Amino acid sequence: MRLFEELLKNVRQQAPLVHCITNYVTVNDVANMVLAVGGSPIMADDEREVEEITSKSDALYINLGTLNARTIKSMVLAGRMANAHNIPLVLDPVGVGISKLRYDTAKELIQQVHFSVVRGNMSEIKVLVKGQGRTKGVDVAASDEINSDNLNQYVDFAKQAAKFLNCVVAISGAIDIVSDGKVAYCLYGGNKMMSRITGTGCQLSGMVATFLGVNSSEVMQSTAAAISMMNICGEHGIKRMTKLDGNASLRNYIIDAAFNLTGEELKKEAKYEIR
Amino acid sequence: MRLFEELLKNVRQQAPLVHCITNYVTVNDVANMVLAVGGSPIMADDEREVEEITSKSDALYINLGTLNARTIKSMVLAGRMANAHNIPLVLDPVGVGISKLRYDTAKELIQQVHFSVVRGNMSEIKVLVKGQGRTKGVDVAASDEINSDNLNQYVDFAKQAAKFLNCVVAISGAIDIVSDGKVAYCLYGGNKMMSRITGTGCQLSGMVATFLGVNSSEVMQSTAAAISMMNICGEHGIKRMTKLDGNASLRNYIIDAAFNLTGEELKKEAKYEIR
Amino acid sequence: MRLFEELLKNVRQQAPLVHCITNYVTVNDVANMVLAVGGSPIMADDEREVEEITSKSDALYINLGTLNARTIKSMVLAGRMANAHNIPLVLDPVGVGISKLRYDTAKELIQQVHFSVVRGNMSEIKVLVKGQGRTKGVDVAASDEINSDNLNQYVDFAKQAAKFLNCVVAISGAIDIVSDGKVAYCLYGGNKMMSRITGTGCQLSGMVATFLGVNSSEVMQSTAAAISMMNICGEHGIKRMTKLDGNASLRNYIIDAAFNLTGEELKKEAKYEIR
Repeated sequence: MRLFEELLKNVRQQAPLVHCITNYVTVNDVANMVLAVGGSPIMADDEREVEEITSKSDALYINLGTLNARTIKSMVLAGRMANAHNIPLVLDPVGVGISKLRYDTAKELIQQVHFSVVRGNMSEIKVLVKGQGRTKGVDVAASDEINSDNLNQYVDFAKQAAKFLNCVVAISGAIDIVSDGKVAYCLYGGNKMMSRITGTGCQLSGMVATFLGVNSSEVMQSTAAAISMMNICGEHGIKRMTKLDGNASLRNYIIDAAFNLTGEELKKEAKYEIR
Repeated sequence: MRLFEELLKNVRQQAPLVHCITNYVTVNDVANMVLAVGGSPIMADDEREVEEITSKSDALYINLGTLNARTIKSMVLAGRMANAHNIPLVLDPVGVGISKLRYDTAKELIQQVHFSVVRGNMSEIKVLVKGQGRTKGVDVAASDEINSDNLNQYVDFAKQAAKFLNCVVAISGAIDIVSDGKVAYCLYGGNKMMSRITGTGCQLSGMVATFLGVNSSEVMQSTAAAISMMNICGEHGIKRMTKLDGNASLRNYIIDAAFNLTGEELKKEAKYEIR
Repeated sequence: MRLFEELLKNVRQQAPLVHCITNYVTVNDVANMVLAVGGSPIMADDEREVEEITSKSDALYINLGTLNARTIKSMVLAGRMANAHNIPLVLDPVGVGISKLRYDTAKELIQQVHFSVVRGNMSEIKVLVKGQGRTKGVDVAASDEINSDNLNQYVDFAKQAAKFLNCVVAISGAIDIVSDGKVAYCLYGGNKMMSRITGTGCQLSGMVATFLGVNSSEVMQSTAAAISMMNICGEHGIKRMTKLDGNASLRNYIIDAAFNLTGEELKKEAKYEIR
């Protein structure tokens, strides 16, 4: 098992090419975050090129935001190609509880493609596992927020979810949980204000894909490393804020922090336990 | 009639879900601005999910920028659903004078859907009302700029436009005018440099939708409150600028200002009269 | 032959309308950069409106990022209309080496449309000219980087490329080369870190189109002026960075720098030679 800082070092030395099929709302931030971490993003969603591009990439990232008939088809094609070439791939089921289309698409993708990691908030993962529950838009429902009181219960849920979805599951919240079905990382840090910026979740999923692109044998550890990095960058960004700053500046500060974060800092500032 | 600060307080307490079908140019800024004001944005434009998402939302925002055959169909479906559920909805006819497609789409939407508010610049509203006139791209024509000399004439026009379009009309300019056909708010403030940032108009329409999401019985007052807030945020952003800053930093500063603006400041700094 | 500062002055006095058919990843930055330089951007990609909009515009900018069947058709229609009206137009063949679709589309566009300028990195231009070679995603291959040792050889290549593509060719790199087939500008400046921001190339192509919009008789000179401006803005942006800044803040600083750059500064700080 490699240390977080070694996984990050690999990213920066090898600059993985990360194929992203993601929503048009936060795609620019995803691209800059992949670059900040050390990867090279390529966005493409036409069915005639996604297979070729995935086959040349080091990782694939599929995000359900602003999906449509055309891009859903491309997601399936790219996902299958990733599986055929053993390319690691991440699913972010954005707002999966808000429409039948998103739910059906997520289910179809999970049936037809084997994902390395599924990452979402608790409401989204619950919908995937239980087939019910509703998110408020793309945000977590208040009743689904992870805290120290319900952590044990949600660790158990994360393990079940990982077994059910047959992949590593990452659940974001005040405490983040990553599980492969056997053990679970509980990751601390970050800041509630990150949810007031559009796309921090989308960015995080892109970071996971970037880490996996050069560390594909360490799926759970890479996912935990990416989440730790995001949490630390969120803290660095918050620390940098002045009284005049709001969510727009914080967005930039977090990406800047990822650009500047060293392996040494990642090692020193990561806060997690394994349950 | 509720005070501006009460309307803003409602937004921040209830965090309305705002369904946005908007262009891919400025969508990220719209999302961050909706969050800054206190709402929760959800972007979705596939015809198979827009009705479901609108029906679960507190407001709908339709923007004609980068429209296409697929999204036009979704706009009509979502708009009708909003009407069926009495969900307030805003139309921003971006660049309606620049192509027959945008003009025809705006006309079709206005015929098939009852909007709560139509917001645009003077050139755009003139095209909608008079069926003629041309904008220069997405900007107002120089001959259509509102100033203290022509204000009375344009207040009359705004009232006529509101009657003609059968909804509240908001016209942005150096002086902004909002009318329901009977009276008109004339709102002062803001800064000409805001037009050098892409998407400040798109953001403003998103703010109007956010205010309406929890204040649907106060359409004209909510629209005026959102415009006042944008004007004040523009002034705060301009004030914050250093010699090295330009339109990119100002974009962030304005959203930051919205994030930080209190009801007290909105009350104190709003400049308007009713004619 | 007009001086760079005169070309920029024309842009700021006449505010050309620039029709952009470009990718959804970096489109917001392109719009803000066109505004920073002094132009007015209009984004539109539906086949039913692109011809009308191009015909009313001062320049057309086509970028192959995130292309799809629908937008490819629009690119061809808009390009032909630009030719019919003698409107200058720029092609940015983003990632043309990464898929057959992008390669075929670039070839089709070049056959059916006469471009004023094709701008890309060395890997992309090589693919267009030689029909082979592969980029790593959207970045230049390490073996294709221009430096002082291989500059003469690449100047020759740029001249051949301009003849082959029958237009001005601009190749971005540590040293930029612009050629019309007879002579070549070698432009110095900028900073390697600009490649760690998504879309600086897309922005640059938009700047070229903006310059051409009001200087269509000076194609090579306008292209060189735009590249010089971007190089200088990159340097200004880098100079402004603090230890906490990364690629996200630098993105803003570069656009800000373009907003503030005067003709005097462009004249004084441009570094180039003609070979």
